[in-house]
Amino acid sequence: MSSSLPVPIENLIESLRILPGVGQKTAARLAFFLLRNPEATRQKLGNSILDVSHNLRKCAKCGHFADETICGICQDTRRDQSIICVVEDALDLLAVEKSSAFKGLYHVLGGALAPLDGIGPEDLEIDSLVARLQAGEVSEIIVATNPTLEGEATAALLQRRLINFPMLKITRLARGIPVGGDVEYADEITLARSLENRVML
Amino acid sequence: MSSSLPVPIENLIESLRILPGVGQKTAARLAFFLLRNPEATRQKLGNSILDVSHNLRKCAKCGHFADETICGICQDTRRDQSIICVVEDALDLLAVEKSSAFKGLYHVLGGALAPLDGIGPEDLEIDSLVARLQAGEVSEIIVATNPTLEGEATAALLQRRLINFPMLKITRLARGIPVGGDVEYADEITLARSLENRVML
Repeated sequence: MSSSLPVPIENLIESLRILPGVGQKTAARLAFFLLRNPEATRQKLGNSILDVSHNLRKCAKCGHFADETICGICQDTRRDQSIICVVEDALDLLAVEKSSAFKGLYHVLGGALAPLDGIGPEDLEIDSLVARLQAGEVSEIIVATNPTLEGEATAALLQRRLINFPMLKITRLARGIPVGGDVEYADEITLARSLENRVML
Repeated sequence: MSSSLPVPIENLIESLRILPGVGQKTAARLAFFLLRNPEATRQKLGNSILDVSHNLRKCAKCGHFADETICGICQDTRRDQSIICVVEDALDLLAVEKSSAFKGLYHVLGGALAPLDGIGPEDLEIDSLVARLQAGEVSEIIVATNPTLEGEATAALLQRRLINFPMLKITRLARGIPVGGDVEYADEITLARSLENRVML
């Protein structure tokens, strides 16, 4: 029996299945959605996917994505060069950046410790962080790893690795009730942390 | 302040936002997911999106997607040429096809009546269906429009438009309890239909 779809559509559906959370049905739905769109929209999407890795590299300083040797954030001299926010990945960096509450530099670890997934200390950008600190210009590190088992283990590892910088202030993001959240629905651990870390009204 | 991401990534995120249900955050997540994939995977996806509309047309007979004048299904002489399953769109066709319970031909209407969205009878492939019936080879039409207000209105419209073919059997998909579903959780209308349309055990 002949296939019920032209080959290009079958190919598109198959390619779309690599996306996270996209199975056969969603892939078909996305493919037909794209087919209903004007040619120009498809071209824009297709070309952005093809172009994204051209000239793309990791910033030699912080490990964030960059199109030059040094990323836009590290190049920005208006940013506070004495404070580094350490994040697991670029998505976390973007989230902190979007809060507009941080004007220092970043360091992207490239993940978190996850022994079960085979990610050990040597897979994280820790040596490069230590190297940045040796220049002596940084006075504070904000550890902004995720509040997960892996993130906490990574934070603990960083603390051990930075013990040779006694003048360095090492802080981490506060845990507490999310803004707009409800005390009633907060889990016990979050609530316990928000009590421990209570601040003056 | 300089942008926190290289332009190609910003472009990719912006392009991904055209996908249904994809907002800024999901688009960023998809973009970084793609960046973590090998170049070859991205190329395959990008090229499938660019290639999908090359040589792609509507089948001159049934309106399904085709890479030649006539689609693979209409070309298949082993299929029963005397029965046509009328569906709203290609996704519905694929669903029926996947059931393996239908070996006839299809007719794709290209949507359903939706006056509020400005989709009237003239926007649906009804004239082309009538033309196919005038050849006199078709003995049954299965109306497989969706069990929605729009689908039911479209079914009713088809029934009126096909009144000039007295020898034509017009059927529609049975309504009833989904296989694997639970009588307890079936809505009243579905349950009422499944009682009306009960069959011998």
